[in-house]
Amino acid sequence: MATDNNSHKEEHLGSSVFITDIVIGMSDGLTVPFALAAGLSGAVQSNVVVITAGIAEIVAGSIAMGLGGYLAGKTEQEHYQSELKREYEEIEIIPDEEKREIKVVFAQYGLNEQTQNIIADELAKDKDKWVDFMMKYELGLEKPDANRARDSAATIGISYIVGGLIPLSAYFFTRTPFQGLFISALLTVICLFTFGYFKSKVTGQPPIKGAVKVTLIGVAAAAAAFLVAKAVNNLF
Amino acid sequence: MATDNNSHKEEHLGSSVFITDIVIGMSDGLTVPFALAAGLSGAVQSNVVVITAGIAEIVAGSIAMGLGGYLAGKTEQEHYQSELKREYEEIEIIPDEEKREIKVVFAQYGLNEQTQNIIADELAKDKDKWVDFMMKYELGLEKPDANRARDSAATIGISYIVGGLIPLSAYFFTRTPFQGLFISALLTVICLFTFGYFKSKVTGQPPIKGAVKVTLIGVAAAAAAFLVAKAVNNLF
Repeated sequence: MATDNNSHKEEHLGSSVFITDIVIGMSDGLTVPFALAAGLSGAVQSNVVVITAGIAEIVAGSIAMGLGGYLAGKTEQEHYQSELKREYEEIEIIPDEEKREIKVVFAQYGLNEQTQNIIADELAKDKDKWVDFMMKYELGLEKPDANRARDSAATIGISYIVGGLIPLSAYFFTRTPFQGLFISALLTVICLFTFGYFKSKVTGQPPIKGAVKVTLIGVAAAAAAFLVAKAVNNLF
Repeated sequence: MATDNNSHKEEHLGSSVFITDIVIGMSDGLTVPFALAAGLSGAVQSNVVVITAGIAEIVAGSIAMGLGGYLAGKTEQEHYQSELKREYEEIEIIPDEEKREIKVVFAQYGLNEQTQNIIADELAKDKDKWVDFMMKYELGLEKPDANRARDSAATIGISYIVGGLIPLSAYFFTRTPFQGLFISALLTVICLFTFGYFKSKVTGQPPIKGAVKVTLIGVAAAAAAFLVAKAVNNLF
């Protein structure tokens, strides 16, 4: 059971991060290049302009999003390291205060003073374990996986490219932006629905309801971009 | 000291999430519309097309990124709720196993069997606190802030719009995409550098080094988008 629970936990945490990254990358990739291409379809006469803009967007977007993921992960690691250094200093300089903080952690769970003292005295015997404990239970910080930032960056970036090429592909095989927009909208709606369905399954939500929600949000973003692009184009 | 530490913790966590959201939104906003406009500058003759595409991108991007942040926050909340339900079920169905899991948590910090038993017995007296403890210390899950998803969505979306309008503004006040690109690149490099500088200050990194890094990455993304857009345009 403990083994089951542990593997469940690992699996859940691991897949949750991976799936969150795919969800972020794919949902942006499906939505933004689709909406950009849709917006341009109402404003230019050539598929080449739509495709050029779309591909420029996918390249920039995948790098920026991947980078965003990478930087977020790096920031998390740097934060952990600086707090770790601080805790090691604190248990040297103010050990009694740090012991009192252990007791505060357990007081909030209703443990009595005597038990709190036993825990604090025992924990303080091993400095590394003491600091480990303070990091996790006082500050709520887990040691970040060193590969996490890199993996997250790659997952988000690739998901964005895959997502973005789907709506754009329609403009390769059609003659006018209007035809492209029609096929692109059809393809993207199907993909958003499918993507929303599996996303909901994985996160334990009602899949049809989730699929409809994801599709509606994607279509709304594209419609907003289309209308604003039309308005901007009419202004000039 | 405990109060100091707590306020330090709150502050650190709070600002870290908020700043991470701004960093994600702004870095994408500065990079993607800049790169898209740069790419189109080498491929079209009219500033109107560049501005139309840029604004369509900012609208779509801010909605997609805001939505990404919102969905990520919602997923986190749903995950917490489903695990909470599971823990309440487990302490009813297999209380002895759950008590053993408490002991496992403390065994890894070198506490002896007797202390482990005292903690497990005391914790098990209050079911709500027991579940709270299992959520945080067995599964490593903090109760997500209900406003977090909404705040995060708004912060990322607004940061994206602010970031995106900066590189695009150059095309409003110039006559050709080439002139626009020149001013846009100048403006964006200054902003990326400034943004990188303050970002590094806030995260406790060497500010100049950080500013150079952020600027180089932004320029690299824009250059890649520019070259790929040029190549695509030459293909047709």
